[in-house]
Amino acid sequence: MTTTELHPDAGLDALADLAAQLRVDSIRSSTSAGSGHPTSSMSAADLLAVLMTRHLRYDWDDPRSAVNDHLIFSKGHASPLLYAVFKAAGVVSDEELMTGYRRFGQRLEGHPTPVLPWVDVATGSLGQGLPDGVGVALAGKYLDRLPYRVWVLTGDSELAEGSIWEALDKAGHYHLSNLIALADINRLGQSGPTELGWDLDAYRRRAEAFGARVLEIDGHDLAAIDAALADAGRAAGDRPTVILAKTIKGRGFSEIEDKEGWHGRPLPPDMAERAIAQLGGIRNLVVRGPRPSMADHAGPRTAAPSSGAAMPAYPVGEKVATRKAYGDALVALGARDPKVVALDGEVKNSTFALEFATAYPDRYFEMYIAEQQMVAAATGLAVRGYRPFASTFAAFFTRAYDFIRMGAISLADLRLAGSHAGVEIGADGPSQMALEDLAMMRAVHGSTVLYPADGTSTVALVEAMADTPGISYLRTTRGAYPGLYPAGEAFPIGGAKVPRSGDHDDVTLIGAGVTLHECLRAADLLAADGIAARVIDCYSVKPIDSAVLTAAAEATAGRIVVAEDHHPEGGLGSAVTGALLAAGRKDLSVAHLAVSGMPGSGTGAELLAWAGIDADHIAEAARGLVRPE
Amino acid sequence: MTTTELHPDAGLDALADLAAQLRVDSIRSSTSAGSGHPTSSMSAADLLAVLMTRHLRYDWDDPRSAVNDHLIFSKGHASPLLYAVFKAAGVVSDEELMTGYRRFGQRLEGHPTPVLPWVDVATGSLGQGLPDGVGVALAGKYLDRLPYRVWVLTGDSELAEGSIWEALDKAGHYHLSNLIALADINRLGQSGPTELGWDLDAYRRRAEAFGARVLEIDGHDLAAIDAALADAGRAAGDRPTVILAKTIKGRGFSEIEDKEGWHGRPLPPDMAERAIAQLGGIRNLVVRGPRPSMADHAGPRTAAPSSGAAMPAYPVGEKVATRKAYGDALVALGARDPKVVALDGEVKNSTFALEFATAYPDRYFEMYIAEQQMVAAATGLAVRGYRPFASTFAAFFTRAYDFIRMGAISLADLRLAGSHAGVEIGADGPSQMALEDLAMMRAVHGSTVLYPADGTSTVALVEAMADTPGISYLRTTRGAYPGLYPAGEAFPIGGAKVPRSGDHDDVTLIGAGVTLHECLRAADLLAADGIAARVIDCYSVKPIDSAVLTAAAEATAGRIVVAEDHHPEGGLGSAVTGALLAAGRKDLSVAHLAVSGMPGSGTGAELLAWAGIDADHIAEAARGLVRPE
Repeated sequence: MTTTELHPDAGLDALADLAAQLRVDSIRSSTSAGSGHPTSSMSAADLLAVLMTRHLRYDWDDPRSAVNDHLIFSKGHASPLLYAVFKAAGVVSDEELMTGYRRFGQRLEGHPTPVLPWVDVATGSLGQGLPDGVGVALAGKYLDRLPYRVWVLTGDSELAEGSIWEALDKAGHYHLSNLIALADINRLGQSGPTELGWDLDAYRRRAEAFGARVLEIDGHDLAAIDAALADAGRAAGDRPTVILAKTIKGRGFSEIEDKEGWHGRPLPPDMAERAIAQLGGIRNLVVRGPRPSMADHAGPRTAAPSSGAAMPAYPVGEKVATRKAYGDALVALGARDPKVVALDGEVKNSTFALEFATAYPDRYFEMYIAEQQMVAAATGLAVRGYRPFASTFAAFFTRAYDFIRMGAISLADLRLAGSHAGVEIGADGPSQMALEDLAMMRAVHGSTVLYPADGTSTVALVEAMADTPGISYLRTTRGAYPGLYPAGEAFPIGGAKVPRSGDHDDVTLIGAGVTLHECLRAADLLAADGIAARVIDCYSVKPIDSAVLTAAAEATAGRIVVAEDHHPEGGLGSAVTGALLAAGRKDLSVAHLAVSGMPGSGTGAELLAWAGIDADHIAEAARGLVRPE
Repeated sequence: MTTTELHPDAGLDALADLAAQLRVDSIRSSTSAGSGHPTSSMSAADLLAVLMTRHLRYDWDDPRSAVNDHLIFSKGHASPLLYAVFKAAGVVSDEELMTGYRRFGQRLEGHPTPVLPWVDVATGSLGQGLPDGVGVALAGKYLDRLPYRVWVLTGDSELAEGSIWEALDKAGHYHLSNLIALADINRLGQSGPTELGWDLDAYRRRAEAFGARVLEIDGHDLAAIDAALADAGRAAGDRPTVILAKTIKGRGFSEIEDKEGWHGRPLPPDMAERAIAQLGGIRNLVVRGPRPSMADHAGPRTAAPSSGAAMPAYPVGEKVATRKAYGDALVALGARDPKVVALDGEVKNSTFALEFATAYPDRYFEMYIAEQQMVAAATGLAVRGYRPFASTFAAFFTRAYDFIRMGAISLADLRLAGSHAGVEIGADGPSQMALEDLAMMRAVHGSTVLYPADGTSTVALVEAMADTPGISYLRTTRGAYPGLYPAGEAFPIGGAKVPRSGDHDDVTLIGAGVTLHECLRAADLLAADGIAARVIDCYSVKPIDSAVLTAAAEATAGRIVVAEDHHPEGGLGSAVTGALLAAGRKDLSVAHLAVSGMPGSGTGAELLAWAGIDADHIAEAARGLVRPE
């Protein structure tokens, strides 16, 4: 196989050849796989040919170089194009393209994921790549202070996602001139024409209104593309750039150009053959575009870490809200580690992220009420090696669930803190009560779910989260409750505490967060009845401490009460019983107390009682297990 | 208590009095409750005074009247204002306002919910009221064909939510001139100034770019408000109207006007006293605004239901994808019931909602790729008594989780169908694989979660969903699998099937959807080894059939294999073991097979094997239970 090398000074003819190669390879890989999106790749091939040859500053031999530009395919289904780019860059072989795409055990997945070293984030759930790119660009402008640009290829269908507008809004607000969206306006979605078709003016008005500079081009005019990318790539001014490229789906093969019914369909082999012929056959151009340079940049802010910064400490018995302890701990972490950054969704005075924002304003990003963008920005910041902590009311993380799920697929280390969990919050009512969050977060791949009951354990867990891979979630409580543990006590992830136990316990009471306090009160009530209760603090809901649970089941003849301020499904009770069954226990008598009804307003105490998860109900359930009627 | 009645012809002085009353009552109720958002209420009091007196066509004695206008507080935290409006309308007493607000067991909750007859949807998770209003307006314009208007009060902070722009985009696309957003631009959010402050021009550009007609007013100028509401209320043209009202937070009490630090804080009693004095004291005006009329409207489209329309039938053994059966069944339901409507997120050719869209284009609403708006529109359609079925890939319902959660609090009956569940989808990779949806949907209050394995059961369950209250969710599969049940077999919600059993079963295999087929194959493999397996089809994951599970556990000495194409947490396995423990089983030996790793691409069969949930792994797990080493 002979290859021809292309350099940034290659002429437009050579770029046209490269674009044809990207189209041909998109067709070949998807036809060979029997699935994929060739037509969505062909519309953007000209954009990518010019970008990779003349504008993308990228050291393909060192994908982790800090000065590389970033390239994100927000339209992840155009993976055939992305992988064709990788072949043209010489980092993926033609053989891999033809035998690896969409195959089991291979890295060229149906939609790009960071198992590939040149991919920052997983895409394929539309409307996420641009929000993720905002996070990378925030890092570039405010933290790394490096001149890299973030190029994001978006589709047009995905511009219907609100998250795109959250992204442009924040890109404008934060003056991210280093962010460039290439919008491939090919008019056709999956099941029919897009809402706005080729009405580029409509897109222009929207993008401009949200703070972007807009360039409109014919997305198949190489000279126009080149001029627009050069303009955008200067990253001048204080606005992000959106390049609206009018394109044709399936461009390059006359039989399918601009035709409906070809989304997500590979060409049958005979059509593929005709298409490849029409595109001038198979090529093997290799491109070496501009390389990034370390020269002429301000360089990252390097705050000297003060490793001695003390974590906050709270006396046993003194009341502190775990959400307050979260804020305190985050400030201490921030002093130790300049990579720690924080984001919040305009509730920072409630989540106590305000403390971090006040102490380290340069490392705090206000996302206003845009939870999707908040999680996406955290993902982008994690791409650049930062340790983001993102907070809002626990209930409002439901708004960002798709982003959290995709964060896991992106192999991003995200630290999420949800405050105001459960009915405990009281008067605000059900819209503000997180009652699904434990289920939601436990179901995320590789997640860690933490639910501390006091200040000391909160501090320890926040500290642990800084080094926890994957999605970690901390559930905090609105109200202040007495400190249970002395400062400095260890709370390893995956562990549990046994704040009360004896040699002859009759029953085990399991709680976390506010229900742990109720369990302790219940144990007092039971003691007055002559019933000895062991109490377990399941501060680590996932992973859960199977050994402590099993020992308790063994000690108390399988009699277990689990109480949680959460709906009955998928939360603490589910985690506890799952672990015990997996450990082979056959003696279980479990009373599972959870929030089954639809709560209203009230005081926290009234609602805990109403839900049947307060000390009285826990004690009553325990009595029922110990002394069945 | 003397009351003065106000009529639509009341002068501006009287309106000013009413506005002062609304402010005073907002202060009184929140101070009496010790929590709430008086300042966010005071900024919008003038808007509501004029609206309720002169423009809102509403029969307060008949809140269910089909011709009433709709009033939605998207800024649900302004509940003190809403409840003050209800007092002014004479439907809530002053005593209830002063003793019921935010109290346990009372209906004047911290954020409005439909436990109140004048409230359409629950709000309080910001950015949802306007999307919900789009659904109501769609019903008004296209289905009811009634002249009611939908008035939505939004805050300014919530305009940062992408869902707001999804809503305006769809309102423009569907020419919803019957939708009027009153945006209360008071400049201050919860924790500080909003992103755009009083830059009304910025909001104007955005709203216009998204297809709205925009009116800018001083939100405290009663004459200007009146003119704008009159203009908007004509519902002329083909665009929604956004009224941008420049307002002052805390307006009416000089000590707190436009001051930070007063969000979500009731006035202390001494301040409240001064505020009430400054506002002219307590009033008891009662308002009777314009009443709606049945005259001069086109009236609803009344398609005669053809109750005899046959549900689709599939032969046993013939392969059909459950997603295809969903589409088929929906068409049949549509023939029977003119209240059945459908929505999809631009994947209708994959979910097979396309069949309904083709058969009943007047009752199909394309939401493009905007899943949040899709669920919100369904909620609004449900408000008007329609039976919405909304579909997208199961994975992408994660995008709308907050809307689903709030749909439950809104007491909306929503029917959601998620296709392409699990690793079974194969080549597209993890971004498209729903592996959290069962956990997510089970955790929703009052939800029903269904997961059929063949065409016959799918048809029966879709039919059942039409009459199912609350949030019901149908999980469908990409691939086609053989029909298992004869047409017409009953599949009650909460039931389970036992497609294979004998008098001396050794082990129970439990599956749903694709894993049921794997369980049946595993039973064949086991039979060849002399092991008799009972197989259970858990098509109803929530509620689950405890009786069938318990009987199987009893018959097979507690030996149970559960296999699910879902992450291990919160799904089928969790539902099964939860039910068995709740039933008091102590003999359980459970092997729970689920998707633990991070999948890539491959064929469905390869991925089921990789995940350890195919027939071979199920059989192996069963052997391990029956003949432990």
